Amino acid sequence: MNVTFIGLGIMGRGMAANLLRHDDVTLTVFNRSPEPAEALAEAGARIASSAAEAVAEADIVFTMLAEPSVVEAVAFGEAGFVPSMREGALWADCSTVNPSFSRAMAARAGEHGLRFVDAPVAGTKKPAEDAALTFLVGGPSEDIETLRPLFECMGQKVVHVGETGQGTAFKMLVNAQLAQSMLVYAETALLGESLGFSRDFLMDTLPNLPVSAPFLAGKAELIRSGDYAAQFPLEWMHKDLQLLDLTAYEQNQPLYLANLAKSLYGSAKAAGHGRDDFAAIHAYLAGRSDNH
Amino acid sequence: MNVTFIGLGIMGRGMAANLLRHDDVTLTVFNRSPEPAEALAEAGARIASSAAEAVAEADIVFTMLAEPSVVEAVAFGEAGFVPSMREGALWADCSTVNPSFSRAMAARAGEHGLRFVDAPVAGTKKPAEDAALTFLVGGPSEDIETLRPLFECMGQKVVHVGETGQGTAFKMLVNAQLAQSMLVYAETALLGESLGFSRDFLMDTLPNLPVSAPFLAGKAELIRSGDYAAQFPLEWMHKDLQLLDLTAYEQNQPLYLANLAKSLYGSAKAAGHGRDDFAAIHAYLAGRSDNH
Amino acid sequence: MNVTFIGLGIMGRGMAANLLRHDDVTLTVFNRSPEPAEALAEAGARIASSAAEAVAEADIVFTMLAEPSVVEAVAFGEAGFVPSMREGALWADCSTVNPSFSRAMAARAGEHGLRFVDAPVAGTKKPAEDAALTFLVGGPSEDIETLRPLFECMGQKVVHVGETGQGTAFKMLVNAQLAQSMLVYAETALLGESLGFSRDFLMDTLPNLPVSAPFLAGKAELIRSGDYAAQFPLEWMHKDLQLLDLTAYEQNQPLYLANLAKSLYGSAKAAGHGRDDFAAIHAYLAGRSDNH
Amino acid sequence: MNVTFIGLGIMGRGMAANLLRHDDVTLTVFNRSPEPAEALAEAGARIASSAAEAVAEADIVFTMLAEPSVVEAVAFGEAGFVPSMREGALWADCSTVNPSFSRAMAARAGEHGLRFVDAPVAGTKKPAEDAALTFLVGGPSEDIETLRPLFECMGQKVVHVGETGQGTAFKMLVNAQLAQSMLVYAETALLGESLGFSRDFLMDTLPNLPVSAPFLAGKAELIRSGDYAAQFPLEWMHKDLQLLDLTAYEQNQPLYLANLAKSLYGSAKAAGHGRDDFAAIHAYLAGRSDNH
Repeated sequence: MNVTFIGLGIMGRGMAANLLRHDDVTLTVFNRSPEPAEALAEAGARIASSAAEAVAEADIVFTMLAEPSVVEAVAFGEAGFVPSMREGALWADCSTVNPSFSRAMAARAGEHGLRFVDAPVAGTKKPAEDAALTFLVGGPSEDIETLRPLFECMGQKVVHVGETGQGTAFKMLVNAQLAQSMLVYAETALLGESLGFSRDFLMDTLPNLPVSAPFLAGKAELIRSGDYAAQFPLEWMHKDLQLLDLTAYEQNQPLYLANLAKSLYGSAKAAGHGRDDFAAIHAYLAGRSDNH
Repeated sequence: MNVTFIGLGIMGRGMAANLLRHDDVTLTVFNRSPEPAEALAEAGARIASSAAEAVAEADIVFTMLAEPSVVEAVAFGEAGFVPSMREGALWADCSTVNPSFSRAMAARAGEHGLRFVDAPVAGTKKPAEDAALTFLVGGPSEDIETLRPLFECMGQKVVHVGETGQGTAFKMLVNAQLAQSMLVYAETALLGESLGFSRDFLMDTLPNLPVSAPFLAGKAELIRSGDYAAQFPLEWMHKDLQLLDLTAYEQNQPLYLANLAKSLYGSAKAAGHGRDDFAAIHAYLAGRSDNH
Repeated sequence: MNVTFIGLGIMGRGMAANLLRHDDVTLTVFNRSPEPAEALAEAGARIASSAAEAVAEADIVFTMLAEPSVVEAVAFGEAGFVPSMREGALWADCSTVNPSFSRAMAARAGEHGLRFVDAPVAGTKKPAEDAALTFLVGGPSEDIETLRPLFECMGQKVVHVGETGQGTAFKMLVNAQLAQSMLVYAETALLGESLGFSRDFLMDTLPNLPVSAPFLAGKAELIRSGDYAAQFPLEWMHKDLQLLDLTAYEQNQPLYLANLAKSLYGSAKAAGHGRDDFAAIHAYLAGRSDNH
Repeated sequence: MNVTFIGLGIMGRGMAANLLRHDDVTLTVFNRSPEPAEALAEAGARIASSAAEAVAEADIVFTMLAEPSVVEAVAFGEAGFVPSMREGALWADCSTVNPSFSRAMAARAGEHGLRFVDAPVAGTKKPAEDAALTFLVGGPSEDIETLRPLFECMGQKVVHVGETGQGTAFKMLVNAQLAQSMLVYAETALLGESLGFSRDFLMDTLPNLPVSAPFLAGKAELIRSGDYAAQFPLEWMHKDLQLLDLTAYEQNQPLYLANLAKSLYGSAKAAGHGRDDFAAIHAYLAGRSDNH
């Protein structure tokens, strides 16, 4: 089976490496900057010189790219790969995008005789390396069955959420919960500090109560340590909130709190926290009044 | 031990009934409207004719009242009970109020030679009846030890959070998480419905992921059933958000999302959902666009 | 001078009619639905059968379309007009769009050897008919001088704001002020009513104080009458706030209040006020609590 | 006529000085810190040693104090002046408070046989000195007629807005417009700068369009100069927004934008801008991202 993987960022390089463990896979990789591909080449992947060249023989193409405009440019821009794919081949986009974009990509891929599955992942860098991701997948069942052995090389769980676009849609809902739960907790904890509780007390207690999302216990450790090395960079979360907001607009379903959260993450990004983990919203809010 | 319980609302009547199970307690009760006291009288409580009369012999006085202005009126207003308490007696206020108010009550009680503990509870009607509450307690350790056997009659757990006012402060943080997690989930789920997911799917999946606070699984059942019989009335949550906002102002620690949540719960209350469970924020948001 | 006008909606039909008053103009018009063109044909315009055909002989092309995606489709989509324009011809886009979009259109027009000016207007239906618009124009001075006599046929004032995209940018700032001033006033006035002031009193006094934007006096008349026949439809304002929000994201310059305003106008639109004047945000906020 | 003036802050000292110009007025003044009274003593005022002593002979008492809790303490606290007033005397409170507070003060003054008028002012330091204030007055007509000559000593205009509390209510609406118009303009102008407009251009144009409140032209001068010497301190505006929010809660009339504005002014205050003019919200928003 000829498989191509395009986009070797923080997530993609781990995912592609795991694909190499599959016996029946012949892997070709492409990335705009060449360095990340080299380690994969040593492990047995072929490095393509362009996205178009990478897909020419592929049965299956995975993309893992930063945002919709990048996916569109790589797939359909000048030297985009879609026109070079073989008729009937299958494109699985693992990028975190917005549902209407996934549906548009599926439609345009269809015009080229291609099949399309949206397959964003739950999980960050380490689960990508450890093949512990969860794939949230939208598309026809038979295409998903074709992809399942490959998903299972890269992850622990495959959830077929619904038709084309619904994988992306569900991922968006999950990230909406993440972004806002984090921010609410940060504001709550900072009020708690101002009322005399120690940071340790707040990090030990609140995240473990049923009123708090369980992922917050891990984020509390980042806050406690002050080390915000990014598992999930704040600027990606800001971008996801922008796509969420766009979706809310398209659906005419206003999201009051998510929109305000976008403004606050945006301020944190403008203040230099974009490449920190999104838990650094706590540091931003804490520091806002310290500079004067 | 002479114990007095003032305030026999949804919560207070269950709590007072559980105090009667304690062998060493002689219980006196008072409520502004007399009906709730009668069942307790049958179970062995003495009904007092006024708050002042109720406390005259008391070693310990519990109050469980609706909001700060009511506590202040019952304690210090015309015919308030505080001046009638015996010197050295202990007042435990279980009402959900704000920290600066608890501290003010403690100071004013001290001027009358009284001891004061703030002891709000986590838990709603059924835990109150089943003696399954958690007491979040602020005050001197020796006073809390005096109260502990009584708290344990009414609840499962006593958490000594810190000095006077910190019980109230911690309760406020817990309710902040509750109010906002509920609202964020409601907005997220409604976007999900607009994107084509069924309500059942959203209620089954999202609350059970680590991105969601565990209490939401129970609230999801209310949303699914459409039966919002109040465990925690929305208008109480609105009031708690108002006290939270006041506290944020006093501490000069702005709470962006909590303040916006207050506006939305306020709109839901104005639209007639005040006596529903606060999970009815979902019904309010869903219905906002249905009337045209 | 061969002039083409594409987009004969509420605004465009009045503007095109005024162009006919210019002696040196030979006018060709195109609209997706043919009806609005007919009255113009009677007045001397030639009706084209497609956008591409409409521009083939044009020296100058005006577009007045609903939103960026429509402008892009009409200009560059299948059968888009841009490839049919003569080299060196000038395209003036009067649509209300976002600055990065205007700049992208200018760049793409440039690739076809065309000149581009962004020229959105301040003013609504009646000023369009009365040739009383203000043009907010971005682009090279010589192009604007070429257009000036035509602008002056359609409006009273031409403000050359800056380079390409700055006309659109300034229009966006103006609409940001409009949308938010209207909403703030509506919320203020509704609180005033709840405090016992009559609607008449609030409409007579507040808009005429220096604390209120002068345009509010006119909107107060709509509120007073309850007749929200659209001068500026609420759904257009909602769209403009979405473009504003996109721009704030691109610039990483968070707009807290404008974003919240977008949510509220979005709720008003979802509740059926989309085609009312945007002053109907007052009716939406007033009615929110009336349906129960 | 014996007149007493209590509260000689930025506003009060100018107002009291103007009262001295009235031939029939014998003026007594009191202020917690004695310095501001001394200049008035030189001009002919009697300095009282306490608030209670200050009012003993007064026909009319004016108060101009910082906030409700201060008014309550000075009027009804230990050594409060109300019990020392002569029966039938008239208390005019010029402080900026909230309507329910004014009504409560009126009721409690009535219990002491006193008359009460709420008479907050529109205008800042210079108009107070120049006798150019506008009085927004609530209360019985005959009381207002009694006060009118004194108001006219201190100001240019007396608007009898309605019954007791309505002066305060209208002042609150005016300040709501001020606070939010200022903030909206600051956010709009900062987006404008990010889009390439010069600060001068934005300060020259936007405030003079009908989409902007006319008072903004003056505030634009502060922004342009960077000199935020307070005409109206930001921390007072923050306090007024808190009282507005309390009123919205009491009236169950949510104010979405005003509440968010409160959070932003609160952040600006926490960042050290409390004593600057409230136009410094522009400096706060501009600087938020500059510290990294």
